[in-house]
This record gives sequence, C-alpha cells and structure tokens, in this order.
Amino acid sequence: MIVSYAELAGTLEHGFVALGLDADRARRCAQLIADSTRDGVPSHGLNLFPRVVSMIRSGAIDVRARAACVATHGAVERWDGRRGLGALNAYDAMSAAIVRARTSGIACAALGNTNHWMRGGSYGWQAADAGAIAVCWTNTLPNLPPWGADAPRIGNNPFVVAVPRASGHVVLDMAMSQFSYGALARYRARGERLPVAGGFDRDGRLTHDPAAIEASRRPLPIGFWKGSGLSIVLDIIAATLAGGCATHEIPSDPERETGLSQVFIAIDPSSIAGAEAERVADAVIASVQARYPGERTLAARRQQLQDGIEVDDEAWAFARSVRDTRI
Amino acid sequence: MIVSYAELAGTLEHGFVALGLDADRARRCAQLIADSTRDGVPSHGLNLFPRVVSMIRSGAIDVRARAACVATHGAVERWDGRRGLGALNAYDAMSAAIVRARTSGIACAALGNTNHWMRGGSYGWQAADAGAIAVCWTNTLPNLPPWGADAPRIGNNPFVVAVPRASGHVVLDMAMSQFSYGALARYRARGERLPVAGGFDRDGRLTHDPAAIEASRRPLPIGFWKGSGLSIVLDIIAATLAGGCATHEIPSDPERETGLSQVFIAIDPSSIAGAEAERVADAVIASVQARYPGERTLAARRQQLQDGIEVDDEAWAFARSVRDTRI
Repeated sequence: MIVSYAELAGTLEHGFVALGLDADRARRCAQLIADSTRDGVPSHGLNLFPRVVSMIRSGAIDVRARAACVATHGAVERWDGRRGLGALNAYDAMSAAIVRARTSGIACAALGNTNHWMRGGSYGWQAADAGAIAVCWTNTLPNLPPWGADAPRIGNNPFVVAVPRASGHVVLDMAMSQFSYGALARYRARGERLPVAGGFDRDGRLTHDPAAIEASRRPLPIGFWKGSGLSIVLDIIAATLAGGCATHEIPSDPERETGLSQVFIAIDPSSIAGAEAERVADAVIASVQARYPGERTLAARRQQLQDGIEVDDEAWAFARSVRDTRI
Repeated sequence: MIVSYAELAGTLEHGFVALGLDADRARRCAQLIADSTRDGVPSHGLNLFPRVVSMIRSGAIDVRARAACVATHGAVERWDGRRGLGALNAYDAMSAAIVRARTSGIACAALGNTNHWMRGGSYGWQAADAGAIAVCWTNTLPNLPPWGADAPRIGNNPFVVAVPRASGHVVLDMAMSQFSYGALARYRARGERLPVAGGFDRDGRLTHDPAAIEASRRPLPIGFWKGSGLSIVLDIIAATLAGGCATHEIPSDPERETGLSQVFIAIDPSSIAGAEAERVADAVIASVQARYPGERTLAARRQQLQDGIEVDDEAWAFARSVRDTRI
C-alpha cells in the first residue's frame, strides 16, 4: 500500500492522541515514526508501532511520562526516562545535548529507564539538522551471543554517528549484529541466502542461511570478536552514566524490553571548524568513490516523498484502527 | 629474546635522548613503547620503533615539536601536532581532554598535523588510569577498500573505547579492518589460514588465505559495509575538528604517513556515577561469560612483567644501536 507522508504522519498523530499523549508529543512521536518509514526503514518505523501500542496498553510504556534531567556534572547530564515513550525520550535527550553543546562545545546526555528508541538514526539526523556532530547509542535486551559463546548475553546495541552537511548529512546507524532478526526474516521470506555469513547454524558452522541462524539464535557480531567487544563496552558506559540497566538486567522478551540505557553525545563544530567542515565532508565523500553512510537513506526519502510511502498493509490497517479508537 | 621492562624502557629512553628528545619527553615516549610491548602488542610497540627512527632521520617527524592548543570552543580544543612524535602528541591531547573533563564532565581534544600514534589502546589505558571514560580514534593512510570498491581509499582508522575499573580497565582497541597487514603477515609466516574470511583474493572472492589478501590489497572492513561506513564518518569528524588532513590527503607510503587527524573524548564519571560505576562494569563482565575487551592485554602484561618481555631480535638490536649512537 502507498500512502502520502501527510496521511501517514496524521494517522499516527491522531493515534497517539487516542492513546493519551498530549498534542505536541503526539505530533513529535508521529513525525519520528513517519520519518523512519519515509526514509526506507519501516522495520523501525511503522512496523514497530503495533508493539509500541501493545506496550502502552500493557502499562510497560507510560505515555504521560516525560524524561527529566536528574543530575549534572558540567556538560554531562543524567536523564531519567521514567519508562516513557522511547522515541520521545531519546529525542528530548539528544535535544538537551545539542543545546548544551552550543555553549560547552561538547555535551553528553545519558538516559536511563527508557524504552526502545525505534530508529537510532533518527537522533543522528536530528543532531545533524541542528548543525551538530553526534555519537549516540543504546543498549538492548540480550539478543546476540558474545564472541566465543553460544547464548545471547549481549545486546546488538545500535550505534549512531552523524555529521552535518548541506548537501546531505552523513549518518551511520549500525547495530552490532551483522543482520537483525528482522533482516533475517526478510531474506528468508524472499527465499534468499545472506550476501555474507550472518551467524552460526546449530552445529556451530558459519552460514549464509537465514533460517539456520533464526533456529540457532546465534547471529554474528560485526567483525566477530570486535563487534562483540564494542557491544560490551558501550553497554557498560550507557548503564554507568545513565544509572540504568545494563543488557543483562533487561527482560529478554521484546514486549517487556524496558529500562534501556542510552548515551547521546553532541559536538558543535561551528566555531572551531566553521566553513571548513563542509569542504572536508564533501572532499572525503568524493575521494571514497563508494556509498557513504546516509546516502541510501536520503535517496529513499526523496523517492518516497515524491512517489508516496510504501507501508505494510497490516501495520497500516492497525495504525488506522488505533486512530479510530474512541478516546 | 627476553628482556626486563626496565631494560626495554631504559634502552628506548636513552635512544630517544640520542635522537634529540628532551629528557622528560624521551622517558614518556619510551614508556609508551615499552608498555605496548609489555602488553603483548609489539607490532605497535618496539617493532614500530625502527620506522619512527627512520622518519625522525628523514625529517618527517620533528622530535623537538610539541603539540599546542590552537583554538577552543567550550570543552572542545583543537590541537596542532606540528608533525611531532605521534605517541607524545596523542598522550598530550588525551591528557588535555582528561583534565578538562574533570571540570566540564566531558571534553574533546582534536589533534591535527600529527604522526602515527603507535598503539591506540595506550590512550584508552591512560584515560582509564586517570579514572576517565574515553572514546578516541585516528585516521590513517588509505589502506582499506571501502565496501563495494577494490582500491584502498579509506583508512583502517583504529577506534578505542575505555572504561576505568579497579579490577582491570575495559579497553577496546580495534581497527576497522578485520586483520591488519601485520596480522596477515604473521599468519602467513606461521603457515596458517585466517580463522575467518579476512579479505578478497584477486578474483574478488572472500578468502581465508593471508597471502591472497596481501596480493590483492583488499582486506575486509569489519562488518563489511558497516565498518566501511564507520571508517568514513570517523575520518570526516577527525579532519573537521582537527582542521587537519583526511585519509585521502595522507601519503600512502607508510614512511611518509604524516599529517594524521585524531579525536580524544574524555568523560569524567566520578560525580555522576560515583561508586556505582565499579558495580556496573563488574556485573556486565560477569554476565557476559566471555572475554571482555582489555582482558587479554592485562593477562599479557602480568605474564610478561613476571617472566620478562619477549622482543623481536632485530628490533631489539636496532634499539640498542640507537641507544649507543653518539649524540
């Protein structure tokens, strides 16, 4: 099904109002989800909306909660997400880091007690739109075996790095697993093998077969031992600074995945780098002669804003049903 | 050959004095190299010393230069490395970030116009020893093809993340290539195949054969497209903030690899996280039931401090010859 951006965002906005959000928060949250869908990442946009609604209805997410800064040390802020909507909490924490970086050059907001932030790249685009360099990450439920183990004890801990650029921001949004379970399911549904080995089968052999990895629950960390190590250290930093849960303390059922810890670092390059910044990013991208992070996102955005946004029929029907709920 | 730590550090110190360094700087630089060797990373310690000396003698490295802070914006500092010794410049820049983070909570020193920092992990250990969380990285000469290309146009841009912990810091030190050329050469010399695919052969097929990758010059980025993207965005940030060269502007001959750009971010967790920090890191490490980043380093350190440090015969003979140079 193809819908317009206005129809998608409007439906979600009215849905969030029906779910009990204040008007300004409903609009912002709808925009974040519509943007991810428009940008070609429906898995972390509209297709996650049903789970968010389910968690609101179960009480795991408190729609009335607003994240609050509970401690500061210079330009480091600790935020309590109060189990509110993950996307709004992340947006607010990144906003705080961006604003503080304008005076302090660099700033960090560590957010604990929050929920799934949906598309991590959203907060990279947010920072870059505001002219800031950003590094941010989240921990997750245990969904990845550390290198050398066969049970999921680390998170895939999405990691985002963003640089503003007039002709298209550079935004890297990568999880620590080579393929998400969502990606594995999509390859399987299309009857395709993975382009590179994506995990181990039940006999501990590397495989390109998505179904074998879904069965073993042993997806591969990026760079084998390297991504495994990065996941561990990012989890420690997030839980430490946020005063929140580490991956091993987060329930492993996605419907009960709450209490996440996240870190948002913003750097204001304007007064240090000024106009050079633009030249540097453009020159690097020209020199690489290969796709840069964010390029495909921008292409998807342009195409879907022009031709309409492809939405999953079931998720779209669900969103409309939520919109039509009597408050 | 086995030598004691004191003998290794002393020989290097006198060598640096013979090369023209001031006494305090000679001692610090010798310590950084001896520490890397002691920690089981001779490739980025003693075995790099001959190249450093060669670059000092060719004038590519200026032993009398000291890095200087040339601009600030809040807690972001831009440093000019003045083509001085890379290890000392990096140490000084990380020191500046650590000190500033004590008052500002988080701080960043961006260092341009510098040289090879030798072992990146050194600056993670340095920060953790001072009680700081650190994230730092360097760009390099073009030594890695971006994903989808066959010529080396990005750097392997080592990336370091460190967390202090009383019972052993957590320090991740990873390059963006799955295996360095040094590692490929060591596997080849031992007649071993790589444990995982490490690059492409000349026909563009993934291979476990180290010699085939050395021949094609196509090592693999970690996580395939993911590490390639991370390398690109780290390069842009370093060159932008440092006002220095990006990878495409760095000579591709290792003996002429100067003008590097680096970023050092330090976060002081003490007043925000306090005593919790220790508990969080310990609990995460216990939960993972697998090796954590820094564990192997610490084991090598303990073993070599006890049994003596294994040094490459040729590099050790070279270091002694430099020590015995008449000034």
